[in-house]
Amino acid sequence: MVLIREEFEARLLKAGLEMERDTEVRVFGPSFTRLHVPWPVLSREAEFLKIKVPTNKSYGLKEEHGFSASLSEFWRKVNQPFQPNIPQLGHSTTKQLSHCFSREKLHLFNITSKDTFFDNATRSRIVYEILRRTACTRTSQSMGITTLIAKGVYDSAFPLHDGDYTAVGHSERNDRQLLHDEWARYGAFYKYQPVDLIRKYFGEKIGLYFAWLGVYTQLLIPASLVGIIVFCYGCYTVDTNVPSLEMCDKQQNFTMCPLCDGVCDYWHLSTACGTARASHLFDNPATIFFAIFMSLWVATFLEHWKRRQISLNHSWNLTGLEEEEEHPRPKYETILLQKRQRMRRKEKKKKKKKIEPVQREEDVAAGKDRWRQRLLSAMNTGTSGVEKLTWRDRLPGYLINISSILFMFGVTFSAVFGVIVYRIVVSAVMAMSPDPEIKSNVRVTVTATAVIINLVVILILDEIYGAVAVWLTELEIPRTESNFEEHLILKSFLLKFMNAYAPIFYVAFFKGRFAGRPGDYVYVFNNYRMEECAPGGCLIELCIQLSIIMVGKQLIQNNVFEIVIQFGFVSLFVASFPLAPLFALLNNVIEIRLDAKKFVTELRRPDAVQAKDIGIWFNILSGMGKFSVIINAFVISFTSDFIPRLVYQYMYSQTGTMHGFIDHTLSHFNVSNFRPGKAPTSSLLAEITVCRYKDYREPPWSAEAYQFSKTYWAILAARLAFVILFQNLVMFLSLLVSWLIPDVPKNISEQLKREKTLLVDVFLREEKEKFHLLQSLFSSKDQPSQGHPDTDTAHVRTLPPGPSQGLGQHPGGEGGESRARCRAASFSQFTRQMSMSPSNDAGQQMSMSPSNDTARHTAV
Amino acid sequence: MVLIREEFEARLLKAGLEMERDTEVRVFGPSFTRLHVPWPVLSREAEFLKIKVPTNKSYGLKEEHGFSASLSEFWRKVNQPFQPNIPQLGHSTTKQLSHCFSREKLHLFNITSKDTFFDNATRSRIVYEILRRTACTRTSQSMGITTLIAKGVYDSAFPLHDGDYTAVGHSERNDRQLLHDEWARYGAFYKYQPVDLIRKYFGEKIGLYFAWLGVYTQLLIPASLVGIIVFCYGCYTVDTNVPSLEMCDKQQNFTMCPLCDGVCDYWHLSTACGTARASHLFDNPATIFFAIFMSLWVATFLEHWKRRQISLNHSWNLTGLEEEEEHPRPKYETILLQKRQRMRRKEKKKKKKKIEPVQREEDVAAGKDRWRQRLLSAMNTGTSGVEKLTWRDRLPGYLINISSILFMFGVTFSAVFGVIVYRIVVSAVMAMSPDPEIKSNVRVTVTATAVIINLVVILILDEIYGAVAVWLTELEIPRTESNFEEHLILKSFLLKFMNAYAPIFYVAFFKGRFAGRPGDYVYVFNNYRMEECAPGGCLIELCIQLSIIMVGKQLIQNNVFEIVIQFGFVSLFVASFPLAPLFALLNNVIEIRLDAKKFVTELRRPDAVQAKDIGIWFNILSGMGKFSVIINAFVISFTSDFIPRLVYQYMYSQTGTMHGFIDHTLSHFNVSNFRPGKAPTSSLLAEITVCRYKDYREPPWSAEAYQFSKTYWAILAARLAFVILFQNLVMFLSLLVSWLIPDVPKNISEQLKREKTLLVDVFLREEKEKFHLLQSLFSSKDQPSQGHPDTDTAHVRTLPPGPSQGLGQHPGGEGGESRARCRAASFSQFTRQMSMSPSNDAGQQMSMSPSNDTARHTAV
Repeated sequence: MVLIREEFEARLLKAGLEMERDTEVRVFGPSFTRLHVPWPVLSREAEFLKIKVPTNKSYGLKEEHGFSASLSEFWRKVNQPFQPNIPQLGHSTTKQLSHCFSREKLHLFNITSKDTFFDNATRSRIVYEILRRTACTRTSQSMGITTLIAKGVYDSAFPLHDGDYTAVGHSERNDRQLLHDEWARYGAFYKYQPVDLIRKYFGEKIGLYFAWLGVYTQLLIPASLVGIIVFCYGCYTVDTNVPSLEMCDKQQNFTMCPLCDGVCDYWHLSTACGTARASHLFDNPATIFFAIFMSLWVATFLEHWKRRQISLNHSWNLTGLEEEEEHPRPKYETILLQKRQRMRRKEKKKKKKKIEPVQREEDVAAGKDRWRQRLLSAMNTGTSGVEKLTWRDRLPGYLINISSILFMFGVTFSAVFGVIVYRIVVSAVMAMSPDPEIKSNVRVTVTATAVIINLVVILILDEIYGAVAVWLTELEIPRTESNFEEHLILKSFLLKFMNAYAPIFYVAFFKGRFAGRPGDYVYVFNNYRMEECAPGGCLIELCIQLSIIMVGKQLIQNNVFEIVIQFGFVSLFVASFPLAPLFALLNNVIEIRLDAKKFVTELRRPDAVQAKDIGIWFNILSGMGKFSVIINAFVISFTSDFIPRLVYQYMYSQTGTMHGFIDHTLSHFNVSNFRPGKAPTSSLLAEITVCRYKDYREPPWSAEAYQFSKTYWAILAARLAFVILFQNLVMFLSLLVSWLIPDVPKNISEQLKREKTLLVDVFLREEKEKFHLLQSLFSSKDQPSQGHPDTDTAHVRTLPPGPSQGLGQHPGGEGGESRARCRAASFSQFTRQMSMSPSNDAGQQMSMSPSNDTARHTAV
Repeated sequence: MVLIREEFEARLLKAGLEMERDTEVRVFGPSFTRLHVPWPVLSREAEFLKIKVPTNKSYGLKEEHGFSASLSEFWRKVNQPFQPNIPQLGHSTTKQLSHCFSREKLHLFNITSKDTFFDNATRSRIVYEILRRTACTRTSQSMGITTLIAKGVYDSAFPLHDGDYTAVGHSERNDRQLLHDEWARYGAFYKYQPVDLIRKYFGEKIGLYFAWLGVYTQLLIPASLVGIIVFCYGCYTVDTNVPSLEMCDKQQNFTMCPLCDGVCDYWHLSTACGTARASHLFDNPATIFFAIFMSLWVATFLEHWKRRQISLNHSWNLTGLEEEEEHPRPKYETILLQKRQRMRRKEKKKKKKKIEPVQREEDVAAGKDRWRQRLLSAMNTGTSGVEKLTWRDRLPGYLINISSILFMFGVTFSAVFGVIVYRIVVSAVMAMSPDPEIKSNVRVTVTATAVIINLVVILILDEIYGAVAVWLTELEIPRTESNFEEHLILKSFLLKFMNAYAPIFYVAFFKGRFAGRPGDYVYVFNNYRMEECAPGGCLIELCIQLSIIMVGKQLIQNNVFEIVIQFGFVSLFVASFPLAPLFALLNNVIEIRLDAKKFVTELRRPDAVQAKDIGIWFNILSGMGKFSVIINAFVISFTSDFIPRLVYQYMYSQTGTMHGFIDHTLSHFNVSNFRPGKAPTSSLLAEITVCRYKDYREPPWSAEAYQFSKTYWAILAARLAFVILFQNLVMFLSLLVSWLIPDVPKNISEQLKREKTLLVDVFLREEKEKFHLLQSLFSSKDQPSQGHPDTDTAHVRTLPPGPSQGLGQHPGGEGGESRARCRAASFSQFTRQMSMSPSNDAGQQMSMSPSNDTARHTAV
């Protein structure tokens, strides 16, 4: 281990990094090695990595005129209190041109100080890049710090924080302190986030994450407002709503069929008045509007995010960034190596077999030759033979994956089914109880306990599934870290989504649909009747289920996933619960600051990772947006009573009003048709001959008694037609929205074009100047006189260098001197620190680094 | 004009172009100016435009091993006869690295001959770029040849063809001859297209167009095959199909209600046996399968095209190409100029007004000052005030646009309605005719003539709409040429699509649905009954309509649009006409060669335009693909009899077979319920009391006689459920297809990564060499000795140049000498010709260039 460390560190030194070791030699405990990166290395790497940096050319942003100018001024003033108090974050009217860093064009860039020209995140990225790239021949695997960490040679490698996060005295606050004061505390919840500073400190990936959270939270504000209005509309109209009034009307006095066999009595519909009124809060015409609004909101949100992302890419100089070739994961490399060795052994065996039957006497003579051959073949397999793992190597992993996922689907469904059985059994048992108080509270008790059981099961399974997803993804042996991440996200999303939504889907679309009818109920376990929806419809139960699971999950869990699953609550079933956006908003406001606190004060500073977009998350979000359209269509048309009401009003109602709707929804049942033993044993209403139940079936006196009536089919057709209409209308509108909102904000695309023109201009002018110089040279001299070594390097080496004085200032020769000057003057003056702790071979496994780096180095 | 020409040409000379004028001076007729571009200009522009060129580093493509290698070898052999016979187009195992051209790194590139290093298309693109960029102060508008052409200063500017297209003697064929022999003739219809050569000769945009056509045509082959199989299945099963057998069965003898009032008699269903059998050919279960197949085909096609596009982008070195800032169209500039002048005049007036009421005496004194002020303000408006046209300037254009488009929609619908009226009236008149022969052919005659009238109307309106779309787009004053193109394409597509499909939509979804029922028919013009579908269903009529319009359009029109509209035929209504892909395939095979002939032999060589993708076409195609899903869902569920048959078989049939289906679809009508005068006046079947008609209504003896029956609602619900199921299933499968097929082909993404690594490697090595040189210099000398003029250009100019001999070979000085050497030796040796004909001010407007350029220049 020590040898490997020595080799690795020697190579790092060779690559130009500087190293600072702990002065005291400790036998136990972690020891740290700090890495510094001097300016020449920084600039070289920046050139290779094509890092874009601001040049000294700037251009004025378009000023607005007249009305729009005062409008934007007004907007800025209104926004003032919401802006974080970050120094550089002023309203600037110019923007600097950016260009890929090039050491030959140093004069183009705005290098005020070499210490700060590259920002924190860039510097740590460069160091990390070198660490990853540096090979180590002692470990037979290809390269990089990741491999070494995986092998236990080092414990960890990470960039250091900028210093303590609490500002001391009146000195200027560093970035970490700024972030802590202006961002990572609950007191700042109403403020915008200092996204540029976050990016500068943590890198693009984390910057994008918080920017995304910010956009999401911001856009939740209008959605919450509309949701509240819709809810208020429901509250306001509950007293004038005809169906719920009719249901509460004791005069109408519908006698309903009993809710369970034998022990339950007939009951009056007016006793279910409460749920009917509650239903109306969530099941009213405004809900339709809200469902359409939210579908468009999702489309708008995604488009808005695209724009924001492009704006950020532009201002962070990420436009035109190409994806880097990633190093394979250590695990992948290990398995690849094992495979190679296996193959080699097999090959050897094969050759042995081939050779053995042939004359043994040639063996000794050919010995030397065979050695060479074997060596060659081994080298060959090493380089081109087994380049990557094929599907064959991964097949067992995939099989385990598929079967485990199916198994977990099964577990989830069994959990849901278990809760259903619990509900059925408990309500049957409670209904049989002699205590009237217990009897009257059956529905409330059962629903509440069942939902809580559901919630607990969901939370437990979530944890288990999270761990299983990691394990399964490891089995797949993904090649790179980003592959791993993508597969993991997809898998955990699938599992957790299903886990969270299975009970909700059950309530929305299946509950009460397989209960049968009086006289022909469906039984589970031969004894218990399938559960039915409450008399007010299943929507109110869906709403309870949804709100408890959503709020409960948010209170207990708090992570990125929760965001995305929460996005599902906001979009998927929003038709049934208009307050979902409000809860999501409240949660997000807290979550942003909580996460910020974690990053700034608790966690080790993460490696600055570049990212142009939020990757697979965007696909998941937009997929969920699409899915939400069809789900909402079904919730409105099948779970809510919207369509039956509409059909009644326009096809059946005599007066064109909703009066008589309740009567219309209830079918008749002749009590003499009860099967033996199923009728109520002792009824207070002995004279009853006909009871009512909620369904559209032919009456007992019809020729096709208890068959679905014509009304049933007509309403079914209307429901389906609504689904088609809603789905296609919303899909069309969403397309329209995403078409109307251009992906690239207009000012950005204008700026891009302008920058391009300006850049061409700058280079053209430079070109012209060079040309003029050349011309003046031609006229004063007859011979061409510029050096160009690259055309024939081998030749140049043998030649004596020219006289130095004239050369030093000669036009046409480029890039040499200033670079040399930089080398001489600023070699390692500009340092970037990176701690790397070699693990004590016998000692602890995990090392904590001081998050406050006291020793900022200035060598030479 | 002559002055403008002189100035412009002087500026071109200054930009480095060379010019060759017609030697004879002609007074009448066009005269030509040929432009040549020498190597220094070419290389300079190539650097600015960041044109990627092959370097001299190449790498081996991954060789396949074992089974896959022999498979690909076999595939290559099978494909051999289909490959065009193009010299360089071999199977190569290496690929050259590409990098943006840079004059400072000439040694990196594979410059075997400066004459051919940049290909034809690139050279003409560079010349065109210079022409567009060169400003001309005499025309007050900003710049470019486009403006000059628009103003009539020049007639035209275009690149020349390579020479005659018929090869003479045994000399090596030039590109044009190769294209002509191997591509632009019908004899080569079965061959692949030499896409690389097309791109080399015509530029990327046209290359992409033909590549697209090729991919489309290729993928039509499997679609046609499946279509033929589906059709054959229909033919094969027609004799065993129960519904059509029942309809032809004379024993069942259904007496149908008359087809028109009064003069028509009752008729027997068995007389419609022919159409029933024909219907089955297109309306059978295989159609459902075919509709799903084609929807997935569309998704596959689009994905496949994306991949092909990326492959082409890669092999054409377009990856990473950013969009160029485009020059505004001349029309736009003119209007902008007018606006500026108007504004200036207004401003002047305003100032005058302001000044007038003030003391007049100050006027004279302030005169000089005011002049300056006015000048300043004018300059100001010129540069920043009125930068672009706002929506206000465009408002009239938009209004005219919207109203015209609405008007044309109206025209199309009236045309469709006119044909409907024609059909109704003619069939009514023919039915009244005493001649029995005429009577028996009513349906055939009317359908055939109506479709032909439709076709003629469509063709005429297409021409008109094409012209109108151009006019409307001009009114919108789009800023750039590509804006113009995009708007034009969108508009013409909208108009032509609607024009072609309006009658088809009518037949598919509306015909026969508003006809009413016996005793309560719907009448137009108080006298004529709305038309009904044939007894076999509307699908057969849809099929006839579709095939005649599709084939007719293809035979008469032949252009890009036809492709896309044809794509609609292939995707939108494919459920009703499985042979559509076959017709499209035949058409495309011909069209490719026809277009090729046009480009190679007839047209002036177009400017080589770079394009990365097919732009808005892709959006239109994918939009059409999405639309096709819902259309096909409706065609299957509502136009065909698929759902009623299914419902009958599983809900109503006693035996579980289709026997009795025809009886089930026919409702009963009591002839005594005919309104006065509507019953047949003289019937051969006098004893009839009940006649049958095709609908699901209650029988006369029911309480709700002639109301829609329960079956009607059940079937409607089934139809709608099918639409939802089909649409969502197909959308999901399409998503899955486009998710499973990665956008970037695997070998391309691997190559890209590999190239990137290699490039970094090359530059790193160069870097290291430079560093070693520097070090050896440092050790041999004490002073830094490299020139770096760019850091302080002003300073350099005053210094005497250094001694030349040593300098010429000095390491560290870059790019100068070889460039100078190039200049001295090859100045203008490498020329690219571009003809530009100054229009004779009095003479002809259009000039033809000799397509054979005889004078390839070799100046010094």
